[in-house]
Amino acid sequence: MARSIVAITAHSGDFVWRAGGALALAASRGDSVRVICLSFGERGEAQGLWKKPGMDMETVKRVRREEAEAAAEALGVQVDFYDLGDYPLVVTDEARDRIVSTLRELQPDTLLTHVANDPYNRDHNIAHETSLATRMVAQAMGHDPGTTPIGATQVQMFEPHQPEVCGFVPNMLLDITPVFDRKRKAMEVMSAQHHLIDYYTELGKRRGVQARRNGAPGDVVHAEAYQRVFPVVGDELV
Amino acid sequence: MARSIVAITAHSGDFVWRAGGALALAASRGDSVRVICLSFGERGEAQGLWKKPGMDMETVKRVRREEAEAAAEALGVQVDFYDLGDYPLVVTDEARDRIVSTLRELQPDTLLTHVANDPYNRDHNIAHETSLATRMVAQAMGHDPGTTPIGATQVQMFEPHQPEVCGFVPNMLLDITPVFDRKRKAMEVMSAQHHLIDYYTELGKRRGVQARRNGAPGDVVHAEAYQRVFPVVGDELV
Amino acid sequence: MARSIVAITAHSGDFVWRAGGALALAASRGDSVRVICLSFGERGEAQGLWKKPGMDMETVKRVRREEAEAAAEALGVQVDFYDLGDYPLVVTDEARDRIVSTLRELQPDTLLTHVANDPYNRDHNIAHETSLATRMVAQAMGHDPGTTPIGATQVQMFEPHQPEVCGFVPNMLLDITPVFDRKRKAMEVMSAQHHLIDYYTELGKRRGVQARRNGAPGDVVHAEAYQRVFPVVGDELV
Amino acid sequence: MARSIVAITAHSGDFVWRAGGALALAASRGDSVRVICLSFGERGEAQGLWKKPGMDMETVKRVRREEAEAAAEALGVQVDFYDLGDYPLVVTDEARDRIVSTLRELQPDTLLTHVANDPYNRDHNIAHETSLATRMVAQAMGHDPGTTPIGATQVQMFEPHQPEVCGFVPNMLLDITPVFDRKRKAMEVMSAQHHLIDYYTELGKRRGVQARRNGAPGDVVHAEAYQRVFPVVGDELV
Amino acid sequence: MARSIVAITAHSGDFVWRAGGALALAASRGDSVRVICLSFGERGEAQGLWKKPGMDMETVKRVRREEAEAAAEALGVQVDFYDLGDYPLVVTDEARDRIVSTLRELQPDTLLTHVANDPYNRDHNIAHETSLATRMVAQAMGHDPGTTPIGATQVQMFEPHQPEVCGFVPNMLLDITPVFDRKRKAMEVMSAQHHLIDYYTELGKRRGVQARRNGAPGDVVHAEAYQRVFPVVGDELV
Amino acid sequence: MARSIVAITAHSGDFVWRAGGALALAASRGDSVRVICLSFGERGEAQGLWKKPGMDMETVKRVRREEAEAAAEALGVQVDFYDLGDYPLVVTDEARDRIVSTLRELQPDTLLTHVANDPYNRDHNIAHETSLATRMVAQAMGHDPGTTPIGATQVQMFEPHQPEVCGFVPNMLLDITPVFDRKRKAMEVMSAQHHLIDYYTELGKRRGVQARRNGAPGDVVHAEAYQRVFPVVGDELV
Repeated sequence: MARSIVAITAHSGDFVWRAGGALALAASRGDSVRVICLSFGERGEAQGLWKKPGMDMETVKRVRREEAEAAAEALGVQVDFYDLGDYPLVVTDEARDRIVSTLRELQPDTLLTHVANDPYNRDHNIAHETSLATRMVAQAMGHDPGTTPIGATQVQMFEPHQPEVCGFVPNMLLDITPVFDRKRKAMEVMSAQHHLIDYYTELGKRRGVQARRNGAPGDVVHAEAYQRVFPVVGDELV
Repeated sequence: MARSIVAITAHSGDFVWRAGGALALAASRGDSVRVICLSFGERGEAQGLWKKPGMDMETVKRVRREEAEAAAEALGVQVDFYDLGDYPLVVTDEARDRIVSTLRELQPDTLLTHVANDPYNRDHNIAHETSLATRMVAQAMGHDPGTTPIGATQVQMFEPHQPEVCGFVPNMLLDITPVFDRKRKAMEVMSAQHHLIDYYTELGKRRGVQARRNGAPGDVVHAEAYQRVFPVVGDELV
Repeated sequence: MARSIVAITAHSGDFVWRAGGALALAASRGDSVRVICLSFGERGEAQGLWKKPGMDMETVKRVRREEAEAAAEALGVQVDFYDLGDYPLVVTDEARDRIVSTLRELQPDTLLTHVANDPYNRDHNIAHETSLATRMVAQAMGHDPGTTPIGATQVQMFEPHQPEVCGFVPNMLLDITPVFDRKRKAMEVMSAQHHLIDYYTELGKRRGVQARRNGAPGDVVHAEAYQRVFPVVGDELV
Repeated sequence: MARSIVAITAHSGDFVWRAGGALALAASRGDSVRVICLSFGERGEAQGLWKKPGMDMETVKRVRREEAEAAAEALGVQVDFYDLGDYPLVVTDEARDRIVSTLRELQPDTLLTHVANDPYNRDHNIAHETSLATRMVAQAMGHDPGTTPIGATQVQMFEPHQPEVCGFVPNMLLDITPVFDRKRKAMEVMSAQHHLIDYYTELGKRRGVQARRNGAPGDVVHAEAYQRVFPVVGDELV
Repeated sequence: MARSIVAITAHSGDFVWRAGGALALAASRGDSVRVICLSFGERGEAQGLWKKPGMDMETVKRVRREEAEAAAEALGVQVDFYDLGDYPLVVTDEARDRIVSTLRELQPDTLLTHVANDPYNRDHNIAHETSLATRMVAQAMGHDPGTTPIGATQVQMFEPHQPEVCGFVPNMLLDITPVFDRKRKAMEVMSAQHHLIDYYTELGKRRGVQARRNGAPGDVVHAEAYQRVFPVVGDELV
Repeated sequence: MARSIVAITAHSGDFVWRAGGALALAASRGDSVRVICLSFGERGEAQGLWKKPGMDMETVKRVRREEAEAAAEALGVQVDFYDLGDYPLVVTDEARDRIVSTLRELQPDTLLTHVANDPYNRDHNIAHETSLATRMVAQAMGHDPGTTPIGATQVQMFEPHQPEVCGFVPNMLLDITPVFDRKRKAMEVMSAQHHLIDYYTELGKRRGVQARRNGAPGDVVHAEAYQRVFPVVGDELV
C-alpha cells in the first residue's frame, strides 16, 4: 500500500544530500513524497554561486530553485518552496499554517527533518522545532475542524554533517542501494555545492558497511542513517 | 519464515514478567524460543517462599524451577537452567562457553536481555554484560572453528522495574494483545511473586495506551516496551 | 506552617491528571495552592468535545473551563485562566508580566510545571520555559521595585504522558494516598478526556508500588512522580 | 528518632574530605554512624608519607590508620578497616560478605559512597559498585536466613575531586555549618594530605554559597554536595 | 601572531567574574579583545544598588556601565554596550545584525559565551543562542556580500555559577596566574556584587588545583574552566 | 622537545586502523611511540585468515604478529605483544603490572586507547578500563617505590567502528595529512582485514573535510578523530 512521506528541510539542498536515498526509495515504490523547503539556503549554502562575480540574491535563489527542482525530478519527488529566508531562517505563523494544511492534506506516515541541536547551523534546529510543532497542531481535533487531523506520524531525523557533535545516534540504517544512481544524479545537479558529491557518496558507502555489520545482506552497498524521535510500534520483535 | 529468539535472564522469573508477551508471540508464530535462566533467583526473588516456615534453599530452587517450567509451557517456550547463584549472580567461564555454544547452535535473530545499568539489581547488569560478551565470542571466526559463528544479532533490552531510574528509553512498543492470555497464565503460576501479576497486567495496558498514542491500531490493548542496543537495518523508512 | 504552591500548566486538564494528588495534598494541609492554566487545551486536548456535532470553539472553552473549575474545587485549589490559545500555546509579554505579579504576590515555596522537552507536545515545553523565565524575572530586585522579589523557589516537573521519551527521571515519589479520592473525583469531572481516568488511576498505583520499593511505608498505595530542577538544601542527609 | 548511617569508602581519607560534615552532623544528632574503609590508601593517597626517607608500607598503613581513627574520633563516628589494598582496590568475596553482615546488623537508613565513574580513580568506582552489590545482597530474603534483610536504603554519592568530569550532579546541598569545626579538626589530623585542608574548607564555603542561592537560610556557611542514586519518597512536595 | 577574541555576554558583570582571566591573558599578549554586553544586568544583577534608597533604573544602568568600563580597563579590553534589557534579555533583529557586523569586522579566532542551558538564568541561554546564531550568519557568503565572512570560529563556554546543574563539563583549564592580579582588580570595581569577589577568587584557586591535578606545572595557582562547543583541529595529539 | 606516546589496544590491528596517523605523526617528529597489543585478535579479528583451509591458532597468531610488526615498522613505532587472548580479552594481574612498569619506564605524555563502552566489542571496553586502571597505579607514590610515578597523563580515545553507537564524540580532529602515506602503507600489510583499507582511507578524508569545516587550513586532507578523557590545561584560550 502506498505510503505518504513529507520532509521538512531548512535549505533547498538538504533533501538531496541527507535524505535523497530515502526519498527516491519511497518514490520508486509508488509512495507519495513531498519536500517542504523552508528556504533556498541562498545566503549560507550557496558558496559556489556567490564566488561568481556580479552575483545577486535573486539569481542565487533562482539557481538554487532550479537545481532543487531538477534534483527532485531525478529523485521522483515533489517540492514546495517557502522562501522564508536563511541564516537565519524565520518561520512565520502563516508558513506554519501552510505546513499544517499540507500535513492534513497529505496525511504523512513519516516526517523527515533535521536534528534538534546542531551547533553549526541553527536553521536546522528551527526546521526540527517547526516539524514537531506543526505535527502537533495538525493532530489537534479543534484546529480547522473541517479538515482531517493526522495521526501519530513518526519523525525521522536525517544525518547532520557532523553527527557526533550534534548528538545524532542513528537507530536505523536504510538500504538505498537500489536507488543510489538516482541520488547520485540528484547530487550532480547541485552545482553550488559540487564539492559535497564525493563526500556524500563515500558517506553512503560507510553507512552501507555499517549496515552490513549490523546484519544487512551482503549486497547492501549504500545506506543512509536515521534517528527516530518516537518509539515504533510493531507486532514482531525485530 | 521461522525466526530464532534467545533470552538471557538473571533470575527465573524475569522472562515471564518482562518479556512473556514477546516470547509467547514469537512461539505462537512458530519461532524457536529459548530462555537461558542464569539463576533461580532463589535468594533475592523468592520472598513468598522464604516467608514460609522451614524453607530451605533446595526447596526454593526446586519450586522456582517448577514454576518457571510451568510458565514456559504456558508461553510455549523452552528454558535452560544454569543455576549460577543469585545476589550476586556469578557467571563462570564455563557458563559463558555454554551460552556461546547455545547461541551458535540456535543462531538467534534476536537476543533479549536486561538493561545495562540497574542500580537496584546488579545481577541484571551482569546478565546484560554476559549477553554482549557471549554474542561477541559467538561471532568470532576463530572460536571453536568447527561450529558456525552467529551474525550481527540484534539485542533487545526488556523493561526493568523502574525504567527511568535505569536509563531505559523504549524505542519499540510491541503489541502483545493476541497472546496476553498466555502471559497472564504464565504469570499466575509464579506463586512466589503473586503480588506482581496485577502490576504487570496494568503495565501491559499502559504500554498499550502508549502504543496507540504512537500510532498502533485501536485494537492494541497490551504491549511490552523494548530498547534496542544496535541500529536496525531496513529497506523502508518507517 | 502553611506553604505556597503554584502550578504553571499548558492546558486546563494538566493540573488534574499530572499533579492533582500533590495539589490536593498541599490544600488538605492548609497550603495556598494556585494553578495557572495558560490555555484551555481547546484545540488539542478536547477530543471528546469536538466529536460532538455542531461543536464550536467558545463552547469547548466554556466546557473546559467549567470542568477545570469543578476539578479545582474537588482538589481544594484555585485556578487562574489565561486563555492564551493552544496548539500552539503563545505566551505574550503581558501574560508573562501577569505571571510574575502572581509569583510575587503568592511567594511560592514550590513551582510545578511540565518537563523541558516533550517531543509529542511543544506547548508543554513552552510552559516549562515560561516557568523558568518568569521565576527569574520575579527574583530580580530591579523588576517592579515596589513589590517583593521571590526567593530561590524550587521547580518540580510533573510526569509527562510518556516519561522515558521526554527524558523524565523521577527523583521524588510523592505519597498521595490520603487524597487519592479527591484526585479521582477531580478526574471524573473531566468529561472531555474520560478515557484517561483509569490510565492515571493505574499510574498512581504503579508509582505507589515503586514508592514502596524505594522505602515508603506499606500503606502507601498511590503516588505521583516528580523531578526537581534544582538541588534541594537540607540539614539532614536523607 | 536515631538513624543509622553507613559510609563505604575506598581509601581511609575519603570519609573525612568528602563526607566529614554529613557524618559529624548525623553523629551530633545521636545517629549511629559507621565508616567502612576498604583500604588505607596506602599506595595512592599517602604522598606526604612516601616522600619521607625510609618509608615502608607497614608504616604508611599504620599512620594512615591512626590518622583515620583520630579523624573519626573528631567526627564522632566509628570506622571498620578492611585493608584490601589500593591502586587497585580488590574486593574479595569474603570482604563483601563482611559488608553484607554489617549492613544487616546496622540496618542503615542511608548509605554513602563514591560516584559510579571517576576516570581519575577506578578504586572509587569499585567502592561504588561494591556498595550497590552488597546492598542488593543484604536485601535478599534468601541470604543468610537467620538475619534480617535491610530495606530500600537510599544511596548518597559524595562529591568527587573533579565533579563535572565524573558526571556528578548534586541534588542535595547539606548544611554542615553546625559541625564544620569538627570537620576542620578531622581534616587537620590527616597529615599525609595536609595540602587538601584549605581546598576542602573553601569547597565547603562554595557549596554553602550555592546552598543559599538554592534557598538555604542566610546563616548557612558550609555545605557538602550529594547526589542520590534512588528517588526519594515523601509525603510533601518540597 | 595577535589573535582576536570576542565575548558575548548577557549582563555587564559576566565578563569579569566568569572570563576576566582569559580576557586579561589575551590582552596581555597583544590580542584584540572585545566584549559585547547585551544588557547592564540592571534588573537582575544589581542587588547591591537596588538596596540603596531612592535608586532608579537610569542610575543603576549608569553605575553598572561605569563599573564595567573600569573593569574592562583593568583587564585591558574594550566593551560594547547593547542595552537590550535583562530579566528577560530580548535580542532584537537589529542587535543581531550589529553583532554580525562586529564579528565580520573583528574576525574572531575565539568566541566566549554562556552555557546553553542554565535553569537559574534564561538570559544566559539567550546569549548562548545569540552567539551561535550570529556566528552562523557571519559565516554566510550571501550575507552582506561586501564584507568578509568569518571562518569556523571556536566557541568557548565559560563557567556558570552552578556548573553541574547547568550541564557544564570543562574540557579546558586555563592558567590565569600571570594575570590574576588584573582579574582581582577588575572584580574589585564591581561594587554592586562585591560579595562575589572572594567566591571567584577561591574558584580560581580551586580550578588551579584541578589544573595541576590534570598536569599543569606546579606554579599554576589560578585557573578558569572552559568547555568548547566544537572539536579542535590540531597537528599534534595532546 | 620529544614526547612519549603509549597506545594500549585490544587487538593487534587496532593501532593501525584507528590511530595509525597519530602514531606515525608522533614518530615522524621524533617522539617515542610504544604500542601495547593486549592480544593478536586471533579469534575475532582475523576472518581473512580463518577462511583459509587448515588454518590453526598458532598460524593465525604468527601471521597477525608479523603483520603488526610490519605495520609498526611502516609507522615508525614499536610494539609490545601481550598475547592475553581475545573474544574475550582477559587481562591478568601480571599483565597489568607489566603495563604499569612500561608506563613508568616510558613516562608517557599521552595515552591512546579505546572508548569506554562499545556494545559491539567488549574487548575494547576492557582495554579502556585497563588503561585507566594502570594509569592510576602508575601514578601511585606507594607502588614499587624505587621507580618513578607518572604524572597526570592525558588519555585520548580513538575512533571506534561505529562511533555514535559507542557514545564517541570527537573533541579533536588531528591532521594526519603529512603521514597518510605511512598509514596507508601500514594498512596494506594487514592482509587479514584488507577490506578495511578503503573504509579507513575514506574515513580519513571524511574527518579531514570536517577538520576544515572546524577551521583547519585548506591543505588538510586526512584526519583522525579523538576524544579526550580529561580536561586539557593550557595557557592560551584556543
